[in-house]
Amino acid sequence: MIPRYSRQDAAAIWDPSTKYKIWFEIEAHAATKMAELGVIPNEAAETLWAKGKDASFDADRIDEIERTVKHDVIAFLTHVSEIVGPEARFLHQGMTSSDVLDTCFAVQLQRSADLLIEGVDLVLAALKKRALEHKFTPTVGRSHGIHAEPVTFGLKLAGYYAEFVRARKRLEVAREEISTCAISGAVGTFANVSPEVEAYVAEKMGLSVEPVSTQVIPRDRHAAFFAALGVVASSIERLAVEIRHLQRTEVLEAEEFFSKGQKGSSAMPHKRNPVLTENLTGLARLVRSAVVPAMENVALWHERDISHSSVERGIAPDACVHLDFALRRLAGVMENLMVYPENMQKNLDRLGGLVHSQRVLLALTQKGMSREDSYSAVQRNAMRVWRGEGNFLDFLSADEDVSKFFTREELEPFFDLGYHTKHVDTIFARVFGV
Amino acid sequence: MIPRYSRQDAAAIWDPSTKYKIWFEIEAHAATKMAELGVIPNEAAETLWAKGKDASFDADRIDEIERTVKHDVIAFLTHVSEIVGPEARFLHQGMTSSDVLDTCFAVQLQRSADLLIEGVDLVLAALKKRALEHKFTPTVGRSHGIHAEPVTFGLKLAGYYAEFVRARKRLEVAREEISTCAISGAVGTFANVSPEVEAYVAEKMGLSVEPVSTQVIPRDRHAAFFAALGVVASSIERLAVEIRHLQRTEVLEAEEFFSKGQKGSSAMPHKRNPVLTENLTGLARLVRSAVVPAMENVALWHERDISHSSVERGIAPDACVHLDFALRRLAGVMENLMVYPENMQKNLDRLGGLVHSQRVLLALTQKGMSREDSYSAVQRNAMRVWRGEGNFLDFLSADEDVSKFFTREELEPFFDLGYHTKHVDTIFARVFGV
Amino acid sequence: MIPRYSRQDAAAIWDPSTKYKIWFEIEAHAATKMAELGVIPNEAAETLWAKGKDASFDADRIDEIERTVKHDVIAFLTHVSEIVGPEARFLHQGMTSSDVLDTCFAVQLQRSADLLIEGVDLVLAALKKRALEHKFTPTVGRSHGIHAEPVTFGLKLAGYYAEFVRARKRLEVAREEISTCAISGAVGTFANVSPEVEAYVAEKMGLSVEPVSTQVIPRDRHAAFFAALGVVASSIERLAVEIRHLQRTEVLEAEEFFSKGQKGSSAMPHKRNPVLTENLTGLARLVRSAVVPAMENVALWHERDISHSSVERGIAPDACVHLDFALRRLAGVMENLMVYPENMQKNLDRLGGLVHSQRVLLALTQKGMSREDSYSAVQRNAMRVWRGEGNFLDFLSADEDVSKFFTREELEPFFDLGYHTKHVDTIFARVFGV
Amino acid sequence: MIPRYSRQDAAAIWDPSTKYKIWFEIEAHAATKMAELGVIPNEAAETLWAKGKDASFDADRIDEIERTVKHDVIAFLTHVSEIVGPEARFLHQGMTSSDVLDTCFAVQLQRSADLLIEGVDLVLAALKKRALEHKFTPTVGRSHGIHAEPVTFGLKLAGYYAEFVRARKRLEVAREEISTCAISGAVGTFANVSPEVEAYVAEKMGLSVEPVSTQVIPRDRHAAFFAALGVVASSIERLAVEIRHLQRTEVLEAEEFFSKGQKGSSAMPHKRNPVLTENLTGLARLVRSAVVPAMENVALWHERDISHSSVERGIAPDACVHLDFALRRLAGVMENLMVYPENMQKNLDRLGGLVHSQRVLLALTQKGMSREDSYSAVQRNAMRVWRGEGNFLDFLSADEDVSKFFTREELEPFFDLGYHTKHVDTIFARVFGV
Repeated sequence: MIPRYSRQDAAAIWDPSTKYKIWFEIEAHAATKMAELGVIPNEAAETLWAKGKDASFDADRIDEIERTVKHDVIAFLTHVSEIVGPEARFLHQGMTSSDVLDTCFAVQLQRSADLLIEGVDLVLAALKKRALEHKFTPTVGRSHGIHAEPVTFGLKLAGYYAEFVRARKRLEVAREEISTCAISGAVGTFANVSPEVEAYVAEKMGLSVEPVSTQVIPRDRHAAFFAALGVVASSIERLAVEIRHLQRTEVLEAEEFFSKGQKGSSAMPHKRNPVLTENLTGLARLVRSAVVPAMENVALWHERDISHSSVERGIAPDACVHLDFALRRLAGVMENLMVYPENMQKNLDRLGGLVHSQRVLLALTQKGMSREDSYSAVQRNAMRVWRGEGNFLDFLSADEDVSKFFTREELEPFFDLGYHTKHVDTIFARVFGV
Repeated sequence: MIPRYSRQDAAAIWDPSTKYKIWFEIEAHAATKMAELGVIPNEAAETLWAKGKDASFDADRIDEIERTVKHDVIAFLTHVSEIVGPEARFLHQGMTSSDVLDTCFAVQLQRSADLLIEGVDLVLAALKKRALEHKFTPTVGRSHGIHAEPVTFGLKLAGYYAEFVRARKRLEVAREEISTCAISGAVGTFANVSPEVEAYVAEKMGLSVEPVSTQVIPRDRHAAFFAALGVVASSIERLAVEIRHLQRTEVLEAEEFFSKGQKGSSAMPHKRNPVLTENLTGLARLVRSAVVPAMENVALWHERDISHSSVERGIAPDACVHLDFALRRLAGVMENLMVYPENMQKNLDRLGGLVHSQRVLLALTQKGMSREDSYSAVQRNAMRVWRGEGNFLDFLSADEDVSKFFTREELEPFFDLGYHTKHVDTIFARVFGV
Repeated sequence: MIPRYSRQDAAAIWDPSTKYKIWFEIEAHAATKMAELGVIPNEAAETLWAKGKDASFDADRIDEIERTVKHDVIAFLTHVSEIVGPEARFLHQGMTSSDVLDTCFAVQLQRSADLLIEGVDLVLAALKKRALEHKFTPTVGRSHGIHAEPVTFGLKLAGYYAEFVRARKRLEVAREEISTCAISGAVGTFANVSPEVEAYVAEKMGLSVEPVSTQVIPRDRHAAFFAALGVVASSIERLAVEIRHLQRTEVLEAEEFFSKGQKGSSAMPHKRNPVLTENLTGLARLVRSAVVPAMENVALWHERDISHSSVERGIAPDACVHLDFALRRLAGVMENLMVYPENMQKNLDRLGGLVHSQRVLLALTQKGMSREDSYSAVQRNAMRVWRGEGNFLDFLSADEDVSKFFTREELEPFFDLGYHTKHVDTIFARVFGV
Repeated sequence: MIPRYSRQDAAAIWDPSTKYKIWFEIEAHAATKMAELGVIPNEAAETLWAKGKDASFDADRIDEIERTVKHDVIAFLTHVSEIVGPEARFLHQGMTSSDVLDTCFAVQLQRSADLLIEGVDLVLAALKKRALEHKFTPTVGRSHGIHAEPVTFGLKLAGYYAEFVRARKRLEVAREEISTCAISGAVGTFANVSPEVEAYVAEKMGLSVEPVSTQVIPRDRHAAFFAALGVVASSIERLAVEIRHLQRTEVLEAEEFFSKGQKGSSAMPHKRNPVLTENLTGLARLVRSAVVPAMENVALWHERDISHSSVERGIAPDACVHLDFALRRLAGVMENLMVYPENMQKNLDRLGGLVHSQRVLLALTQKGMSREDSYSAVQRNAMRVWRGEGNFLDFLSADEDVSKFFTREELEPFFDLGYHTKHVDTIFARVFGV
């Protein structure tokens, strides 16, 4: 986890102190149910809660014990017994370490997912606001980096909005995927622990019951979770790359907010660089790097091997925390983005009307010129404009073949921007419901 | 696409002939709606359908035209005009190539998803059948490849069944993700084509409308699709690895069906190798390799660049067809798997009762021995068994500390298998509803 | 393997006919040596060569046999016996299938590597030619997509040249990595085949001897090979992305060659799109997708399992053939690239002299202004230029703080392009040795 | 970076304090050379060294400054000026941030590579020792997890040794790839800094000169570096998986050292799990996850964008430190591995002589039986042994077809282990030169 790309809230989920608190809750809830089932004494369960509930577990002490026993859960339980006394022996009865570890992991991923969904909501709010603001701000649509036809800046943003609505749904599904609890014992048979304990702990921890676990919660769930994060990261990358393009010196249709006192370059004082979106591009790569190892983790041997553990110690906090950071950063970028409609217009005018070539092509076809002839008439004149020889409308008016079908006056309306924005309302209604 | 890992049905979806047929349908449905809207003559649309409906489009001829015009859709349209005559000029009015390409791609992926779901259903059927058959066949549960505690073979299979139920859901979600149609023109503004055309074509092709497209359908959908395939492939790998382990010479609890006439090894005539599941392990890696490029495809520049195209020409048929093949192969493997309950029992007995160590541990704790003392008493005797010095029950009975709490007669019931299978019904009810 | 991204030469290496020819050569060379060692009769080896040397092996027939025997090498040997007669029984004595398969694979990869190196050489030749041509063509250097300081177009190309020199070395190392021969029998012990056979076949096939094989040649070699291909593909991507940027409408400093008759867009006749370099960007992703599965292939179980086989049937031809295609395409793009020095100059002038800001900053510092004060003086004036208020030199001359150190006349030389190109010769000497 | 998988030495390379020390050295060496060239005053350079050489730079203070100036190198330089006084303004003259960052990164990667090579040497030493120790310890060779033919345990280890010799070479090449220094200014033109400064700093820092840089050292170098780490990690995985297999309950031919006081399982006291090699399997996945993002980092825009930075802040320390840890852990595992030759012999005997089937097959062929007939004779009897009906030699002796060619006495020598070990010396000579 890279501190500079971590928010405190998101990182705290992965603190040892949080983990030990969740471990205690899982163990103590299990004890409560076991007491109810008569497996352990009622007083034991009560004492455990009474003494452990507000205890703070000492990560260093647990590490110290682990160095001897070489087992994290046993080290934790030993430390709990130092705090709550002999009743600690009633903890963990019939359970296996993974019951605690995996259920805790589910809680941590679920909390992370909540923050991620919050982050997407911030992105959505910023996108919606700016999309409505620029609903009819004309700008050129580009395919292959080449001017195509006019769009509006709001329309671009509406597309990103719709993509992040999908991102939200993917995170919701991912959250559900990993929100399961397993308290099923060493190989998932409930030999030494009742399924009722599992059901009770699940409910208390806000999880559902894992229908069938081995020693662990099956890792296809986690693979699906991290895959969803990778897709969301890729959507962030798409928007980040868009902003980077728009901020290019030659384009300059938008710019990341540049605060007072900020230095763009140690060597070149004139620079204003899209460093936040470049950073987001990199973070997307980083988050995505969790996907393949998470999938490689699925095929654990038999009822489990522990190869997934080191992988998850790395990718889980890293991917969750960095994606959380990226979403908030993206929301800020979009919220504060400086937009330059006049530059958009300037760029739009740059090709001497060429962006209207398709409309002319269609009009010629509809007047009866063959598609092939229309295409070459339009392309022939377009290439002259492209070479900087003049204006598209002028050339078309003067073209022998074109003028058989249209006068200059008839051609002029084909150069109207409104033609391209007539369905913006339709699209906005689809996306924003307004 | 590797022919030996391709089923005809699945591969046919990606034949040029299928593609051109879908292209024609999209264009012709669009023409029908345009005629209805008065954009093109009714007769034109009718002629198109009449002459093109059952036409077979000549892929070689289209390739030949493409070599001149260097554009696949224009080449196709030119070829259509060779078949249907001058009315072809009314096709593709106001549309952009990607309207056709992407909508066709959606249809192909959707059909592939249908086959994949069918494949999962075959796997589920085989797993259910074998799980019920071996519901109470005892076998050892293993963690870390080391004997842990008894499970049943049916229980193992129930876990895989539940995993493939999740796989099915993931494929359903993935199918929905990519089932959208975009007919929105060069930059998604509907400047030259009505949204009604899109709605009509979508309905006819069994798709929903893409709420906001650029020149293309956004690629986060496809990234999510291929990510889902990668997760499913990883689940295949898990089951394949399980079978491979079970077929090891030293384990031999199950074997892939070995047909008459089959040679296991050119050099060693005695060999019976788990080649199908090894192959599935490899296919899982292959399918998974589509995930990252699909994610890298998301960040297309502005309203689109065409970098995704070559990627998708590779990964889309490959991942879909190979996963389809893998699912069918896996269904066959599970359907025909030779299971050896007697070997399972032999392995289960191998550790001289050690698989019951936890139960003894728990019993000691419940009788009042501290967790730490219980653990060392049990471990001390277990290690002797491990070293081959004798039988666990004997050692425990003779142990000074243990015998303070239990006589041999009291220890004996702790070695009962039924103790471990008492919740199999519960778990089967969760998984199979029975 | 995608036909449209495959050259005949490169694809032919992976034809079944090529494979069977190599298999025969390996088996027949082994037979020759075995005859020399007295293991098989001399006449048998001679007959094998006499009848098999120019034979063409029938892939369909072999497939047919394989459907019965379910083993590719046995099917091949059976077919060989149909051609050469009973002497075929002396083939493959003491060898294992992988001896043939893996040695053949080495030959195929080696030949592919040769083509790849040839391809890099074509790229290098084109880059060198264009670099020398534009050695002193001024253009703006950009960091973060923002104008930084002047460079020359030749200098940019020199950087790519140096990168492809490294690519060549990586391919040479990769070629050597996989150029080994193993004829060591079922588990690599030479139990039934002499190491002399291996040495003989290795020499005949242009390979070195694998020092210690299991049943197979160890897959770390192949992982390193495909990793090298992935790095080369990434270098292709970098150059492709550069061209795509340069061809943007707003930049237009260079363009892919656009042939007569080519249509940029079915809908927009004015478009000239960088489709080749976009395609290269996608191919890079595709080639790179081979890297992770190749690494996952390394950990085969014990003396081998066959999971790598399906992976390699996919990634080996695909990655080799597509990278070969990409290199040739890239060479063509660079060879024919249309370069627009006047647009480069126009863009360079765009920022009203701001690209010289660092030089002014340094001069101020050297005259004694503190670094911090210099930075803010320069930034203050730069920002005015950025906002389009005027020219950098004018503002600086009028600035109260700056003018304490420099008159306008003294500032002027800081705006000289030659200042930035004075070391181009040095760099070219490093790269091209001239 | 996961603390529990980090060695202090390896992690320290990535401490901010190390980084700032290297930054200072780069800047100060550059100043020395600039003074020599007359660009800055001699006394300034001397003062810088005098006051800065043993200074400790305060990471918190630098962070604090960075929060205002939003630029890490400027923040550092500001802090240096707090320590060394006004002479600090002569630092960084004509340089760009990346000159410092990238050269420092090269030093850090180079130092990491040194540790990695050291780690490989430890693995090699352990492997060699154990290989020589078990040079002639018979064990069964397995393909597909199924018994094949006898090998020796030393031979297995020799194969791994050879693989780690290759790993060492790959790391050496990788080390060289990234050991370059760039001090070439904002866009690599040396406009404001002499190439002599670069050459001087390179030499002082133990690097070579980057022939042509943009603003940054080209990232194909780093991609190649991390790819090499990924291959090495995959080799670790192969050996780790081997040990895990050997430690399986049913196989138990070797075991990780199990220390006193260690608890294998919180629930099952009898367990001795191969947790170290499982952990190594996971770490391999983790290290490998750096490869693709490193390759995605190559295509920086134009003379650089900063998207690579966040990626490298993650993958560079993580991959280097975790691979370092994994190599040391692996060396320890191999050094202390408990090997059980008697279990190896027991497993070898398990198949009733079937592991000799190939030798019998060859003998029959050489006596004149056709390959096909020999194969079925051998397979027929082998399958009876496989089904547990008895012993291979007995069946063969009694077989009507086989007995035409061999008496029992003639068959017996085919069951000699020495036959399989006769070339062990040859192979050891290839690998160890002895």
